Amino acid sequence: MLDWLGCALAGNRHPTLDHLLAVLQEAGGKSQATVFGHGLKLGFLDAPIDNGQAGHVLDYDDTHMGGTLLHASSPTLAALFALAERELMTGAEFLLAYAVGFEAGVRTGQSAPGHHKGGWHLTGTLGSIAAGVAAGKLLGLDGKRLAHAMAIAATQSAGMQQNRGTMCKSFHAGKAASSGVLAALLAERGFDGSLEIIEGKRGYCRIYSDVAAPQALTDELGSRWEITRNGHKPYACGVVLHPVIDAMIAIRSQANIDCARVEAIDVRVNPLVISITGVEEPATGLQSKFSVYHSAAVALIDGAARIPQYTDERASDPAVIAMRRKVKATADKSLGIDQAEAVITVDGSRHRTFIEHATGTVANPMSEMALDAKFMANAEPVIGRDRAQRVRDLVRGLDRLADVRELIGLCA
Amino acid sequence: MLDWLGCALAGNRHPTLDHLLAVLQEAGGKSQATVFGHGLKLGFLDAPIDNGQAGHVLDYDDTHMGGTLLHASSPTLAALFALAERELMTGAEFLLAYAVGFEAGVRTGQSAPGHHKGGWHLTGTLGSIAAGVAAGKLLGLDGKRLAHAMAIAATQSAGMQQNRGTMCKSFHAGKAASSGVLAALLAERGFDGSLEIIEGKRGYCRIYSDVAAPQALTDELGSRWEITRNGHKPYACGVVLHPVIDAMIAIRSQANIDCARVEAIDVRVNPLVISITGVEEPATGLQSKFSVYHSAAVALIDGAARIPQYTDERASDPAVIAMRRKVKATADKSLGIDQAEAVITVDGSRHRTFIEHATGTVANPMSEMALDAKFMANAEPVIGRDRAQRVRDLVRGLDRLADVRELIGLCA
Repeated sequence: MLDWLGCALAGNRHPTLDHLLAVLQEAGGKSQATVFGHGLKLGFLDAPIDNGQAGHVLDYDDTHMGGTLLHASSPTLAALFALAERELMTGAEFLLAYAVGFEAGVRTGQSAPGHHKGGWHLTGTLGSIAAGVAAGKLLGLDGKRLAHAMAIAATQSAGMQQNRGTMCKSFHAGKAASSGVLAALLAERGFDGSLEIIEGKRGYCRIYSDVAAPQALTDELGSRWEITRNGHKPYACGVVLHPVIDAMIAIRSQANIDCARVEAIDVRVNPLVISITGVEEPATGLQSKFSVYHSAAVALIDGAARIPQYTDERASDPAVIAMRRKVKATADKSLGIDQAEAVITVDGSRHRTFIEHATGTVANPMSEMALDAKFMANAEPVIGRDRAQRVRDLVRGLDRLADVRELIGLCA
Repeated sequence: MLDWLGCALAGNRHPTLDHLLAVLQEAGGKSQATVFGHGLKLGFLDAPIDNGQAGHVLDYDDTHMGGTLLHASSPTLAALFALAERELMTGAEFLLAYAVGFEAGVRTGQSAPGHHKGGWHLTGTLGSIAAGVAAGKLLGLDGKRLAHAMAIAATQSAGMQQNRGTMCKSFHAGKAASSGVLAALLAERGFDGSLEIIEGKRGYCRIYSDVAAPQALTDELGSRWEITRNGHKPYACGVVLHPVIDAMIAIRSQANIDCARVEAIDVRVNPLVISITGVEEPATGLQSKFSVYHSAAVALIDGAARIPQYTDERASDPAVIAMRRKVKATADKSLGIDQAEAVITVDGSRHRTFIEHATGTVANPMSEMALDAKFMANAEPVIGRDRAQRVRDLVRGLDRLADVRELIGLCA
C-alpha cells in the first residue's frame, strides 16, 4: 500500500492526468473523495478514476506474479480510498477489504487462463472485479449482495491491449476503480446481477478466455492468499522488461562501459517480452515504457530506469535513439518472464550476464529499505518530506489505525 | 427518436431505476443534464447512466436488424441528450451525430461477426462505441480526435449476456452512454488512444469475436446507412420473441380461443429464440422478457405484450404459469429470426399460423400511427398529454429545431 501511494502521488503529476482532471472537474460534482496530491475532492465515482489512473500511469505500481500480471492495487485501492471517506473505516477493515478484492480479481484471472493472450488488459478487466469486491467488502455487504456486486463489476470489465502505449492504458485502472465503486453502491441498494457471473454458461471465465478453469476460483480459498505473491517494481515500465534492465545495470556496474564504444547489445528473453514490449521506435514516454530497446538503452546510459528515463524527451533523445538501435532482442522459450541473458559488445569484447530472478519479484523481492526509498522519492516532491514520513509511519501501522481518513488527509 | 423518448420516459418509472437513481443522487454532483421524467438534473457523466438504462429497461426500444441485434438508441441518445445541455445544439447537428454514432456501433459489430455468439451484450459493448462516436461528432471533434474518442469508448466496452434477466442488462446501455460521453470529453481535451482500435492486431474485431471482418467497417461507407435498417418494437420484450407474439395474437383474433380449454401451444422458431429466451420459469418481470413460454402465454391470454404483461406480478400469476407450461418451442434453422410458426390445440382442434416477418421489422414496419400511439401510451402517464404532444411535434420537425434544449425541457 505504501508503494502504491507513492506511485499514485507521483502519477498525479504526470501530464496525462491533466486531461482527465480537466474533464472530471467540469463534469464531477460533490466534494466527497480526495484526489491525491491536488488539494481537491471529487465525487465517489470520479475521484477513483483519477487516483486509479495516477497509480498506474507511471507503470511503476505493484504486479501480481502467480499466473496473472495484474496490477491489482491501482483499481482496488483507488476504489477503497474513495469509500473510506464516505464513513469511518478502520485500517483493519480497509486491509481486509483490500486482500479480499485482490483475491477475487486474481482468482477470476486464474479461472480464465486465456485472458491475457486474448488481448485484454487485465488491470482494467480483472481490476474492475477486484475493485467491486473490495468496495463491497468495505461497505460490509452480506454474501449475496457481495456476489451481486461482483456481477455488476464483472459486467463493466473492459480494457484493450490495443491501447498499450496510449493514455488509455492507465485509464483502464481508473475506470475499473470507478466501476467497482458503482457496483458496490448499487449492490448495497438492492441492484442485482447473475449469481453465476464467473462460472456460468456465458460467464466471465468462458467469454473472456478461450480456456475456462472455474475451479481456480475456490481451490485452497482461505488458505492460499494471492496478495502474498505480489511483486514491486524498481523500474517505471512494463514488468517483463525488468530482468533486461537488471542485466544492463549489472554489466554496467561490473565493467567500465564506455557508451560511445558500444557496438551491440544482445538480449535473450521470454517470448512475452517481444510480444508485449517489442516497440522499436517509441514516439512518446508512455510508448517507451513498453519498448525493450528503449529500456535497455536508458538503463545502460543512465544506470537507472525510473520516472526520468521514460519521458517524452528521453524517448526522442538522439543518444537514446542511437543506443536503442544497437539492441537486438531474441525470444527464448526456455527463459522465465523474470529471467534474461544479456551480452554487450564493446570494442570487440563481450560482457555477459544472466539474471535468474528480476529484482522486485517474489523470488527476489525489493528490500524494505528499497521500498521506503522508492516511496520517499515518489511522495516527497508532491507532499513534502514531513508528510511523506508520516504517511509511511501510518501505513506501517495500518492495522491499528482508527480512521483511514487520517492517512487520506496527509495525501490530499 | 420519438419511439426512444417514449421508452426512456416510461422506463424511468420502472423500479430498477430507483436503485440506480438513489446511488447517482448520492454520488452525482452538478446539475448539468436532465433525468427524463424526474424533474431532476445530474452531471454529464451520470445522467446518461440513468436515461440509457431507462431507455432499455422495458426491452421496448428500437433494434437494428442488419447482422446485429443492437439497441443503438439507448446508449447513443442518452449520451447525446446529456451533451446537448452543455452548449447550444441544433436539431440538425443532433440528428447527424445520432446517425454517425449509430453507424459506428453497427459497423463495429459487423466487423466482429462472432460477437453475439461469444456471449457479449451488444447494447453494452457496441453501444459504448456508438455513444462515443456520436458524442464526439456532436462536440465537433476533427477526424483524428474522433478516432481517439472511438478508441477511448471501445476500451470501455462491456456487458455480459450472463446478466440477462437481471437489472444489469439495461444498466449496460446506461453505462455505455456514460462511457461514450467520457470518451468524447477526454478526446476533446487531447486524451489519446490507438488509431487502429477496431482493425489492429489486438483490435476490437479480433478480441471481441472469434471471426474478424474489418472490411465491414468501410464497405459502402457513406452510401449505405445502417440507421435505415432500424426496427421498432410493438412488444416490450426481447425482439426475437416478436414473431411468436404476432402468431399468438393472430390466432386469437382469427379463432375464438377459450383459454381454459387450450391443450397445447407448439411454436417453431429460429434456434436463437431458444438460446436467448429459453427461460422456462421466469421469477421476475425482467426475466419474463426473455421467456418464450411467458411471452406466448400472456400474448394468448391478454392479446398484448406491452409493459403490463412483463411485471413481477404477471411472472408469478398462476394463470400465466399454467399457460406457459403448455408451450413447447422447437428450434428450426430454416426459419429467420423474424419468422415463426405456431399451432394452438383447443379441444382437439388445431389452429395454425405462420408469421413471415414480425411486426416492427424493416420488412414489416410499424406504421406512423402505431408509433405515435406507442409513444403517447409511454409518455402521457409521465409528462401528461399536452407535453407529450408537443414533444411529438418537435421531434417530427427535429431537423428544423434551433435548440435541442427546448425538447429536453419538455421531457424533464
